[in-house]
Parts: sequence; C-alpha cells; structure tokens
Amino acid sequence: MERRSFLNKATVGATAGAIVGAPAIVRAQPAIRWRLASSFPKSLDTLFGTVEHVVQRVGQITGGKFQISVHAAGEIVPPLQVLDAAQAGTIELAHTALYYFFGKEPSWSLACAIPFGLNCRQYNSWWHYGGGGKLFNEFANKAAGVQAFLCGNTGAQMGGFFRKEINTVEDLKGLKFRIAGMAGQMLAKLGVVPQQLPAGDIYSSLEKGAIDAAEWTVPYDDEKLGLHKVAKYYYYPGFWEGGPALHVIGSQKALATLPPEYRAALEVACEEGNALMMAKYDFLNPPALKKMIGAGAVLKAFPRPVMEAAYKAAQEVYAETSAKSADFKKLSDHYFAYQRELVPWFRVNENTFDDFMATIRR
Amino acid sequence: MERRSFLNKATVGATAGAIVGAPAIVRAQPAIRWRLASSFPKSLDTLFGTVEHVVQRVGQITGGKFQISVHAAGEIVPPLQVLDAAQAGTIELAHTALYYFFGKEPSWSLACAIPFGLNCRQYNSWWHYGGGGKLFNEFANKAAGVQAFLCGNTGAQMGGFFRKEINTVEDLKGLKFRIAGMAGQMLAKLGVVPQQLPAGDIYSSLEKGAIDAAEWTVPYDDEKLGLHKVAKYYYYPGFWEGGPALHVIGSQKALATLPPEYRAALEVACEEGNALMMAKYDFLNPPALKKMIGAGAVLKAFPRPVMEAAYKAAQEVYAETSAKSADFKKLSDHYFAYQRELVPWFRVNENTFDDFMATIRR
Repeated sequence: MERRSFLNKATVGATAGAIVGAPAIVRAQPAIRWRLASSFPKSLDTLFGTVEHVVQRVGQITGGKFQISVHAAGEIVPPLQVLDAAQAGTIELAHTALYYFFGKEPSWSLACAIPFGLNCRQYNSWWHYGGGGKLFNEFANKAAGVQAFLCGNTGAQMGGFFRKEINTVEDLKGLKFRIAGMAGQMLAKLGVVPQQLPAGDIYSSLEKGAIDAAEWTVPYDDEKLGLHKVAKYYYYPGFWEGGPALHVIGSQKALATLPPEYRAALEVACEEGNALMMAKYDFLNPPALKKMIGAGAVLKAFPRPVMEAAYKAAQEVYAETSAKSADFKKLSDHYFAYQRELVPWFRVNENTFDDFMATIRR
Repeated sequence: MERRSFLNKATVGATAGAIVGAPAIVRAQPAIRWRLASSFPKSLDTLFGTVEHVVQRVGQITGGKFQISVHAAGEIVPPLQVLDAAQAGTIELAHTALYYFFGKEPSWSLACAIPFGLNCRQYNSWWHYGGGGKLFNEFANKAAGVQAFLCGNTGAQMGGFFRKEINTVEDLKGLKFRIAGMAGQMLAKLGVVPQQLPAGDIYSSLEKGAIDAAEWTVPYDDEKLGLHKVAKYYYYPGFWEGGPALHVIGSQKALATLPPEYRAALEVACEEGNALMMAKYDFLNPPALKKMIGAGAVLKAFPRPVMEAAYKAAQEVYAETSAKSADFKKLSDHYFAYQRELVPWFRVNENTFDDFMATIRR
C-alpha cells in the first residue's frame, strides 16, 4: 500500500487513531519463499483449502514477503512421504494427518486421532492449554526434528459404508473392512480383517464384493466417492475418529531461520485455519448427508454392544502399545488423564444442552 | 530483529528455503496506535485475557507498528458504553458481549446468545460460512457504523445458583432471578421476576434473600464470585446461553484507514482469539466445578418439563420481537433456518459419540 494514500484516508477519518511518528519507520524484512507439501489431493477441497488459506494469510500479513507455495499430494513427494521430506529438509513445511505415520511410531497417531479419543473442542483444549501440544512436540522434535502446528479438524467422522447391517459383535467376524492404523488393530481383535486400499480403489472393491465395508471421512468428502451407491448402510459414529486433527509440520531447522514476525504469522494463520476448517465442515456436511440419504443411503447407528466391545478392545491395544513404546505410554497417559477430567464436564453442560436441542419437538 | 543476525542463521541452516532478493526490499508501513475498550474487568481474566492476546499478536505480526492498547471496563468509558464509544469514534475498537445492547435493538443479541440458540461450534459455522457474520455486520454497520469480528466463546453456560430446588414449572412462579435481556423476557412468561444487578451486588443480595437465584457464566468465573456459599443448588444447562460469542467491534471509519496488512492482522488475530478462548475455558472449568462441589455446591439438571416450557416461551418472545423489529425478523429467520439444518447433523455424529464417551464405564 502506498503511504501517501494511507495518509490521505487517515486525514479524512480524523477520529481514527493517532498516527505515530512521521516519516514512517522503515522496516527491512527479508523476502522468503518456502514450500509446503500436503498429503492431500486438491479434490479434498476442505482439507487442502485450509492450507491454501493459511499461506494466503501469511502472505497478506507479511506484505507478501513470506511466500509459501502449496503442493498437493504427489507434486513434490508422495502423500505419505511428506514427514520424511520435512525431516530431510527437502521441503520446509508438510501438511498431513499424523496418524498416517503410525507405522513409524504409534505416538504420531495421538496428535491426530485414536479410537475413543477427544472430540474437536476437547482436543483443542488439550493441545493448547492441557500441555498436549508441548508434550507432543517434544516427541516430534526428538523423533523427526519437526514441530507440529495445529491446523484443522474434521469433527467426529462417520463409521463408513457397509454392504450389510451390523447388528451384533458377531457380525464383525471376518468382515473385510477398509480401515487402517490403530483403528484396524482394535477392530481386528473383534474379528474384522482390516484392508488397506487407496481412495481410488475403494468403489470398485466394494462394488465387486472384494471388501465388505469402507470408511472414509465425513459426509461432504464421503459423498464425492459415491460409496453409498455400492454399500448402502451408512454407519455412525466413527468412534475411532472422534475429532481427527490436522497439522502443518515445520522442519525445526527451517523454523529456526524465521524472523520472529514470520514465525508469529505462521502460528496465527495456522490457528485461524484450525478454527475455520471445523466451521466449514459443519457448514458442508448437512446438505451432503441429505443428498446421500436422498440417493438411497440408509443411516444406521452402531449398536451400543458393538461400541462397548470395541472400547474394550481399544484399551487392550493401548496397553500393548504402551508396553512396547515408552513415548506412546508417556503421551497416552497424559492424553487419557486429560480426557478423564474433561469428558465429565462436557457431560454436564454441553451434552445436556445439545441433546435437548436435538430432541425438542419444533 | 537485526537483519545481519538473520542472514547468519539462514546461512547456517542452508536447507531452510531460498532467501529471495538481497538486499532486502524495504517496506514502509505507518506506525498506528489504537485504543480498545472492553466491557469486562481484568478479573474476568479469560474474557479479558483474550483481547490482551489479540493485541499482542497484532503487535508481533506487524513488527510492533500496529499497537492497540487494551482498557478494562470503566477505564475510558463505562462497560455498557463501549459500543456508543466506537460509534462516536472516541475509541477505535470495543470488546463486548453484544447482547448487552438488547435494549437498543434486540438484533444485537443474536450475535452473542439467545435462548436455545446455537452452540459454540454451530455458531462459528453460522458466522463464517452460513452467512451469519455477513448478515449481522450489515445490521451493525447500518445501526451503529461498526463491524464485529468474532473473538471468543464461553461454551454453554451454567444455569446459575438457586437457594431452593426447581422441580416443576410452578417453582419458577415469583422467583426473583438475576437474569437479563431476552432470557429474562422468556422466563418472565413462566412467572420469574427478572432482576438486574451488577456482579458486585449478587452475593449480598442472595445471602440476605433479596433475590432467590442468580446466573453468571461458567464454573471458572462463577467460582470466583463464591455464590455457591449462599445458594447451593447449581443448575445446568444455562439453556439461554448455549454458546455465547464475544466480539471485537471496530469503528467502520477507523477500519477504513487501515492498510490491508493491518486489517488482515486484526482479522487473523481475532480468529485465533476466538479459538483460544473456548479452549482455555474448557481447560479451566473442570477443576473449578470440582472445587465448588467440594465446597458444598449441589449440581442439578433443570427438569425437562421446565426446559420445554421455557422453549415454548422463547418461541413466543421471538414471534413478538420479530413483529416489532424487521431487523430481528430477518436475522433470526436466517439463524433459525441454519440451526434447523445443523442440529440434526450434530445429533447423528457428534452427540452420539459424545454421549457414548460420557457414559462408558471406564
């Protein structure tokens, strides 16, 4: 912006605050270009769109000096290699769902989602004030020389599309279900045979019966895959993803070179992205759900005994994982202790209010 | 930050992104000082602390050029005159709960909280994506020449402290209850006698029985007033405040003078404040609630018939208010239409997940 035109405007709006010190103090900030590689394709426009917004904001508030280019999955590195690339310094920033790196070390999952974990609001509180973000970043720094900035949440996900109804725990036996990571481990204890399939193969596998069920995300993204056309039972809730968080991951080496203003710009823009992604999914999901139901999807709740059996299986997975990984034990003990404090408080006020609003006759 | 030291660091961390263009392009941004007057005292440290954080962020990301001083209630103007002061140009920014201005025009309430309204997450979605923020700001601009930036939420509030139990709708008859605005109008239809009292007078009025009950906010703030010592029944949920939103209010005249970078800095910092206030209250409330229960508070849920009667009364208030104010009708029609879309979606996934987590035997 040209200084002269600003002064003119300010003179007109004479009530609008003192302008201190003319001539202006000149500040010289370096122009920096960084690259961000996402695990997501552009077609997941809410996930991907969030980081597009973040880098746009960073550009705006640094007067175009700190420019970050955003690259979709596969443009620089394959989707699941973004963490390695940030660690190696090939890119400065990655954007991902950290449970993708469960195979490297189960602790990565905790920053994204674990079965029967925190919901979106509870997660935000754990991360920012409960000490979760600090504790997780000690691990991330030690394990991969990176730091995670919270940057989005999908809210509780759906349980996925099933070719037949799930009425009892028995119905899970032998079920070929496209589901991964810790959720797959949990359900395997109940007889599920977890399947790993890329998004592009799910529809055809479900259609020809090579798999019995598949979970993806929330209605807005689910609807695009069209799975309700080949597996009509649409289950809820996705109890293995009660509030999956997304992150922007910075290489510590790169972050150390940032002027404090740019570091602050990145932090504040990520937090805005965090808030806006959730708000956007809440806006997009209701019409997408209606559209699928209109096209024949049958909405079903998992029976409580199924969820209870899964809850028990999840506790076994956590105990086994904690026995193998001291990092997971440390992080999950902290996470569950916070959850035990927070859930009873939500039960009092939030859940009571929400349940009333959901059941009142309008 | 000294440019020389930055260059040294960047040279050491050679993987850390290209530094484009040496010597640095110099940018000359004006130094600006603004004043923000809050409706809240410093003692409400979560509410007040949020704007302290916001202005700190704005300072950081503008390299100290855009400085906003924060003034507690009464320092520049009395707490309920901050909107007038922004309109008059005495201050550039106000910080408030907009339902305080219900008496000027009932539409102001809609941006903060109305009985049986949206919860925190639903509100964020309505404001940012559902068109609520845009629509409300058309009203705010027309009515007072100001624009509101969303900047915080307390979550569903508590129902307050009662000297005796509320078991039936009959028990509300003649109840002298410290409650204001539209919530007071609603409860008056059920026989409540709404009382307006400043915070400092509530304790003594309850103690001597001049009033029968008083509502304030959430456990963290409630505990400080000590009302549980003189009215032990602590009711939930505060169904008239399911997710009260706070705002920073900018004078349009002042905002028009801001360089685009500073405008973006203010916007992004307010959104960070919005996310962080909710996360902080969720962190602070559980121990405060425990403390009050330990000190004798008796937690009670409002009976469903009481909430149903209040819901019906609220609909009457909305119809009457819409008949009197075209602005309220336009805004509330939009708000309720959005609520009707969103609440059934929350019922499916979020509420089911939350209710399971609240009731599973650990």
